[in-house]
Amino acid sequence: MTTRMTRATARPVDPTGARRGLGLGELRLGDGFWGSRQRTNATATLRHCYDWMERLGWLANFDAVASGRTGADRPGWQFSDSEVYKLLEAAAWHLGGTPDPDAEELFSALVDRIAAAQDDDGYLNTCFGHGSQPERYSDLSMGHELYCTGHLLQAAVARLRTRGDDRLVQIARRAADHVCREFGPDGRDGICGHPEIEVALAEFGRATGEPAYIEQARLFIERRGRGTLAPVALLGPDYFQDDTPVREAAVWRGHAVRALYLAAGALDVAVEVGDEGLRDAVERQWTRSVERRTYLTGGMGSRHQDEGFGDDWELPQDRAYCETCAGIASIMVSWRLLLATGEVRYADLIERTMYNVVATSPSADGRAFFYANPLHQRTAGADVRPDAVNPRAEGGVRAPWFDVSCCPTNVARTLASWQTYAAFVDASGDTEALVVAQYAAGGIDVALAAGSLRCDVSTAYPDDGSVRITVNEAPDAPVTLRLRVPHWAHGAELTAPGGRARIVEPGWAEVTAAFAPGDVIALSLPTAPRLTWPDDRVDAARGTVAVERGPLVLCAESTDLPAGAGIGDIALLPGAVPRADRDGAVVSAVLRRPLPPREGGPPFGPEEPVRADRDPVDLRLVPYHRWAERGPATMRVFLPLG
Amino acid sequence: MTTRMTRATARPVDPTGARRGLGLGELRLGDGFWGSRQRTNATATLRHCYDWMERLGWLANFDAVASGRTGADRPGWQFSDSEVYKLLEAAAWHLGGTPDPDAEELFSALVDRIAAAQDDDGYLNTCFGHGSQPERYSDLSMGHELYCTGHLLQAAVARLRTRGDDRLVQIARRAADHVCREFGPDGRDGICGHPEIEVALAEFGRATGEPAYIEQARLFIERRGRGTLAPVALLGPDYFQDDTPVREAAVWRGHAVRALYLAAGALDVAVEVGDEGLRDAVERQWTRSVERRTYLTGGMGSRHQDEGFGDDWELPQDRAYCETCAGIASIMVSWRLLLATGEVRYADLIERTMYNVVATSPSADGRAFFYANPLHQRTAGADVRPDAVNPRAEGGVRAPWFDVSCCPTNVARTLASWQTYAAFVDASGDTEALVVAQYAAGGIDVALAAGSLRCDVSTAYPDDGSVRITVNEAPDAPVTLRLRVPHWAHGAELTAPGGRARIVEPGWAEVTAAFAPGDVIALSLPTAPRLTWPDDRVDAARGTVAVERGPLVLCAESTDLPAGAGIGDIALLPGAVPRADRDGAVVSAVLRRPLPPREGGPPFGPEEPVRADRDPVDLRLVPYHRWAERGPATMRVFLPLG
Repeated sequence: MTTRMTRATARPVDPTGARRGLGLGELRLGDGFWGSRQRTNATATLRHCYDWMERLGWLANFDAVASGRTGADRPGWQFSDSEVYKLLEAAAWHLGGTPDPDAEELFSALVDRIAAAQDDDGYLNTCFGHGSQPERYSDLSMGHELYCTGHLLQAAVARLRTRGDDRLVQIARRAADHVCREFGPDGRDGICGHPEIEVALAEFGRATGEPAYIEQARLFIERRGRGTLAPVALLGPDYFQDDTPVREAAVWRGHAVRALYLAAGALDVAVEVGDEGLRDAVERQWTRSVERRTYLTGGMGSRHQDEGFGDDWELPQDRAYCETCAGIASIMVSWRLLLATGEVRYADLIERTMYNVVATSPSADGRAFFYANPLHQRTAGADVRPDAVNPRAEGGVRAPWFDVSCCPTNVARTLASWQTYAAFVDASGDTEALVVAQYAAGGIDVALAAGSLRCDVSTAYPDDGSVRITVNEAPDAPVTLRLRVPHWAHGAELTAPGGRARIVEPGWAEVTAAFAPGDVIALSLPTAPRLTWPDDRVDAARGTVAVERGPLVLCAESTDLPAGAGIGDIALLPGAVPRADRDGAVVSAVLRRPLPPREGGPPFGPEEPVRADRDPVDLRLVPYHRWAERGPATMRVFLPLG
Repeated sequence: MTTRMTRATARPVDPTGARRGLGLGELRLGDGFWGSRQRTNATATLRHCYDWMERLGWLANFDAVASGRTGADRPGWQFSDSEVYKLLEAAAWHLGGTPDPDAEELFSALVDRIAAAQDDDGYLNTCFGHGSQPERYSDLSMGHELYCTGHLLQAAVARLRTRGDDRLVQIARRAADHVCREFGPDGRDGICGHPEIEVALAEFGRATGEPAYIEQARLFIERRGRGTLAPVALLGPDYFQDDTPVREAAVWRGHAVRALYLAAGALDVAVEVGDEGLRDAVERQWTRSVERRTYLTGGMGSRHQDEGFGDDWELPQDRAYCETCAGIASIMVSWRLLLATGEVRYADLIERTMYNVVATSPSADGRAFFYANPLHQRTAGADVRPDAVNPRAEGGVRAPWFDVSCCPTNVARTLASWQTYAAFVDASGDTEALVVAQYAAGGIDVALAAGSLRCDVSTAYPDDGSVRITVNEAPDAPVTLRLRVPHWAHGAELTAPGGRARIVEPGWAEVTAAFAPGDVIALSLPTAPRLTWPDDRVDAARGTVAVERGPLVLCAESTDLPAGAGIGDIALLPGAVPRADRDGAVVSAVLRRPLPPREGGPPFGPEEPVRADRDPVDLRLVPYHRWAERGPATMRVFLPLG
């Protein structure tokens, strides 16, 4: 079905079609924004995750199955196996690009323990089906068995494409074959409460060239939305996306990570089997959900109660859930849509989400993470003890590990493969194109049909909007270099080799030429801070404005306020124009004086509220992705207008 | 400790002190707003609750214990016994004022079944301690055993004060004695995850004259806030108010009903044992929580996730939880504070909450209820089938019964005893005063120290602000008639017998005289619709204004909009002045045209949002308490300013 990848072209998503993403080895990351995060991920986060899972007994769960010692006291949630697999996937991508004996040992040790826990028929799960545990697939709504298997398959895809067939791949094959036997056309007519097996089976099918896996993914997609999952407490069928068939749904709803993993799998199936109706459905859902149910940061999920999407326009800033994993899942969907359509809007959303959700979660040292990513924090979080398991890191502090600790390993696998979401080759036009969707210092080395294209990318993006691409080697024939001009970059300039700077509109800007070594293509993106206004149907942000700078959402933090002023006292002066300042901005604001105490009733009265202002101040704004890095703080992105 | 009540003076709260609430028989309700609701409650709601609990097996749970047939398949939540007790309490108050053979039979049948389930040592619970059930008190965090016992005691208080000692009272005595033995100074050092036993033991102690019950309530209050409850999943100790001792806490937090039942019990204890520090703490918590964490409707609880209070100023309108039971619990606290202090602000909040939370929950026929009471509904609820158990009636439709069906019986006991929260006798001043805190057509017949005072109350409140009190009989000595001028009633006029109308300020207005039969005291409260503005720290209501009329919060419903317009299209014209219309108002507004579709990103952009307006319209506003009565609808209380 697909050509075997080389280690250089290894990538997590490889759909049939005219566009293919660049592989791990085709886009080299230098010491910029993402390169440094990728290195911290490799040197700190992988081991951090391993140590926590060992400490909490999530790894020993595999040993217990292997030795027949499973008991009622199994530690961890029913989905803890999936964290181990996501860590494996992260390690596999890391090892695909970088020799690292420590990571190699970590990987190998994990595979040993996992292999020993696999049943003879391929079933592999530490929470069901052994000893006194509940029976296999006895709780499809909440058991997460197929979800765990899905993450195993994604780890195996990473390994297969970076190293070829090995023990992990064989474990995954047996597990996938088991799923196909158990849930195939003649098997159980069931689905998993948490989608993930669909996207995983589709990719494992692509990676192994085995159409049966894609067919099984298709079956799971088609079965969904028919109300077959048993209801759980107060969660309705929309929580599981089991209320409406995927091809009929108008919008994403229910648990955000579930909705997005499902959409990614549905698109994969649509592309592989040529199902235009299903593909249209996912595009339609993306459009409406992004237009009406997505935050300025790209975050998705407005509700804590069910970690879910809210109604259209329901975008509370303070209670924004915006789970880190939902941001990652949104990128998974948009990347697949970008490859399927070539439309720039998908790359724009990926950028928004990468800089303002994915980059926000991990601490600078890669050893603590946000689970939820609100846009307004009214009370500073308490300091987290480095050895403590935090319930969910919702309180304005990054925590080393959570009770439901899905985000750290999800961040790890995403950062380890970051460059595979940055650029692609597009063979759909008259000339083959290298499309650069995300900017990062480093280099590109890609084999086009016409020959090898090698170039250096020099940029301090996102702090600076200048991107210089210097060609080192190029085919003799003309090729196209297509560069994304982000939606916010009005007045961008592109300079082709030997030409003069010309204004390019947001969207794709391209140069088609037979490039020669030494040629420079320069893109200049205006990154002056700018005001961003909410749609007036977003009730929760009425009367406020945010400041962005390039792809970065900025925020005000209490850390930068004068003593005695709170985050709730800020008002922007009308007509205020933000100015660049370090990696953020400064804007004229007033700090309102406290109101006199009022006693006797709720905070609503017969007079329009008027608070006296102190003198205007220069209010410092910092990138949202690093809020709370200087200690617990209060914070807000959208600032009231005075 | 207290004098034995007559049937006429029977009332649910009877603290030591200079103020005593009027009893069931001392304030007669005519056919006004509350009288009609009380009658619907008696004729429809009591039987409705009984039938649902019978149908769902919650009553048969008592039979199962009695016959030793408890099993793992016990229907209902662990707290379903409490619903039966709340229904008993409602029936007891109803029977205390009105002969009703049907209700008598219902009451008697329930007591039969409950009596048969009580263990020899007084323990009474259908979910723990029998057969293969978990052991007694093995899950103090979530087991709700003492919570259930508390509701049993409150039902017994109603019976004892209306009928004297009887079988139910004896059951309750045995249960209370069991609690005192089990959790006394020499017993288990535990508390219940859901407060309720405290307020119940305190009142049962008052009603029986048994100080041991009050002492046990005091112990439970003092033990709380020391982190002894085992944590549950993602719920922290603040969920249970077990994070900080009651006397040290600054504000209500965590699960709203728990916080408020606890505060009511703490105040009762403080009053009975003369603990000024504890009393000050509850007053302080009321002040800050009402100022910063309470909705325009009086509703409390900003979060769905834990049914809890949010941070200060966190008052989302669309996701307002405002559980009906939290409204009732808030009234319980404020009534106790009103009796303890005589301060009018407590009566103001009771009125706000009665008209806009308690009156909102039940349907006109008394057979369906709201659990949550949001102030903004973006999508119309689906029609509820009359025979269906609704998860939680959050979706904009009243439901006949819920999965967690605490509100119907709580509404029932509150409506059955409504008049006991309306007026009190205040002996703290130079002349004894009859204080009328809530207005309802009917009559008052109260024995003051100086003699009998009888009067008729004539009013169409809240539709009309005129209240006429005609004296039928009065003591020879001067007495004071003290009337509440609500916080919103600027320009109210009071006319004393033989005098001229005089302007009275919001607060208490009084006339002291030796009244004579035929004397009329007239209060005229201006009930023209008025604009109400949010404090500018309430981010979720910025740039909006609400309309109130007298004690009623008004709202716009989609039912009243022209075809093609949605609840999100409304904008009030600047300077718009609402005018009275039927029981609501009319105000000039524009309906904004739909924005052109935008595709490509989240709803935030570089331009200030401007939507074209249609022609101005007269927008009809209706009382919030009857929203969704005309079928599923979208709705909002706070309206954007154009």
